Amino acid sequence: MYKYKKDQTTTYCLGTTLTLEALRFKKERVKKVYISPKQKRDETYEKILALCKGSNIQLIENNEKIFRELSEKDNCMVIGEFEKFYSPLSKDKNHVVLVNPSNLGNLGTIFRSCFGFYIEDVAIITPAADEFDPKTIRASMGAVFHLNITLFPDFSSYQKSYPEHRFYPFMLQAKTLLKNAEIIAPWSLVFGNEAKGLDASFLNVGSPLIIPQNKGLDSLNLDNAVSIGLYEFLRNQ
Amino acid sequence: MYKYKKDQTTTYCLGTTLTLEALRFKKERVKKVYISPKQKRDETYEKILALCKGSNIQLIENNEKIFRELSEKDNCMVIGEFEKFYSPLSKDKNHVVLVNPSNLGNLGTIFRSCFGFYIEDVAIITPAADEFDPKTIRASMGAVFHLNITLFPDFSSYQKSYPEHRFYPFMLQAKTLLKNAEIIAPWSLVFGNEAKGLDASFLNVGSPLIIPQNKGLDSLNLDNAVSIGLYEFLRNQ
Repeated sequence: MYKYKKDQTTTYCLGTTLTLEALRFKKERVKKVYISPKQKRDETYEKILALCKGSNIQLIENNEKIFRELSEKDNCMVIGEFEKFYSPLSKDKNHVVLVNPSNLGNLGTIFRSCFGFYIEDVAIITPAADEFDPKTIRASMGAVFHLNITLFPDFSSYQKSYPEHRFYPFMLQAKTLLKNAEIIAPWSLVFGNEAKGLDASFLNVGSPLIIPQNKGLDSLNLDNAVSIGLYEFLRNQ
Repeated sequence: MYKYKKDQTTTYCLGTTLTLEALRFKKERVKKVYISPKQKRDETYEKILALCKGSNIQLIENNEKIFRELSEKDNCMVIGEFEKFYSPLSKDKNHVVLVNPSNLGNLGTIFRSCFGFYIEDVAIITPAADEFDPKTIRASMGAVFHLNITLFPDFSSYQKSYPEHRFYPFMLQAKTLLKNAEIIAPWSLVFGNEAKGLDASFLNVGSPLIIPQNKGLDSLNLDNAVSIGLYEFLRNQ
């Protein structure tokens, strides 16, 4: 049985590209690499073999079942199984903080944008979508292998851990336009849940900001808001 | 049989919120409203009835089958069936142009961002993901009911139709940073396919722009790129 469950200590990246990213950037975490019997013995195959060589990674080439059970796509030829990893966030680099994100795809896309905008440190306030669900990993396009992620049970635990950071909660109730933010590093951009956003208490946290938008809309999609926030904060660097 | 197919002239919005949006903003296109036998006779129900009153919209309250066949969610209580609509784009307003977008969810999210950033006119260069697939409509959160959409068989047909517009293709090969764009309205922000982007020929179209990003990443997610583009173009308005 290869159904992924959140409480497992290992998880899976589905596909050749993701597995190569895992082998390149988090090799010490990779436990097993499954290669489909249908995978051609080509350059990609040799590349995977070369990356696994001299490591303790178990290469499994005769397990068709895991491909049937884990992947919805027929063209998935390689699966990596790796230990989930968490690392403390840097005290002096900028952070993205996600308060109760609920959508796996959004979360992965946010990881992708973080990596795209040179952010390495992501705090997730639980309860939250699973940061290591194979769907999240896939949506991240491998960006997850470049990030330090830490989970916190509530925002105040995060806040206490990083007293040097300046907090910028993104909220539709904020008065200051994003473009007028007084940017002081190290900063933490803080975003709420897809449906509910941040609750009003965040109006008293740091410097709340609003992305100006049509009031006829509920709000921008969460990962779009994160990307716009990062874009603006890095705009003049 | 209620499976949606792209070549139908009508399509479906699944759920109460979307159907209310359709009834409020595109009522003349709505042909039928299906109300699940499980829907309570509450305020929402009365609201739908009131919106349909005096129109030719057919109210169907005894069809459980359509809910089973069209919706994956158990809590879908209302389905709207409406005629697809296309309108010529405005000659003097700003546009978003999507060249061969391939993902339904992305396309819907882009519609949502367009509406969020006051863009009413969207050109889609085919082949492309179906702008009226129920999945696109759902991802748009109803924004699609606020847009003028036109399909074009190729970019040059679009270009010839809007000679007054200034074109800004978004490409990783561009030299000018987005923040340095010389913004001349009416403008068209042009984005390529999720996997391939725009081909090199677009380097000769208008003023190509790049969103600066980590080269270790393939590229930002398409809907994130569109949101950032719109944010910057409207930043100083």
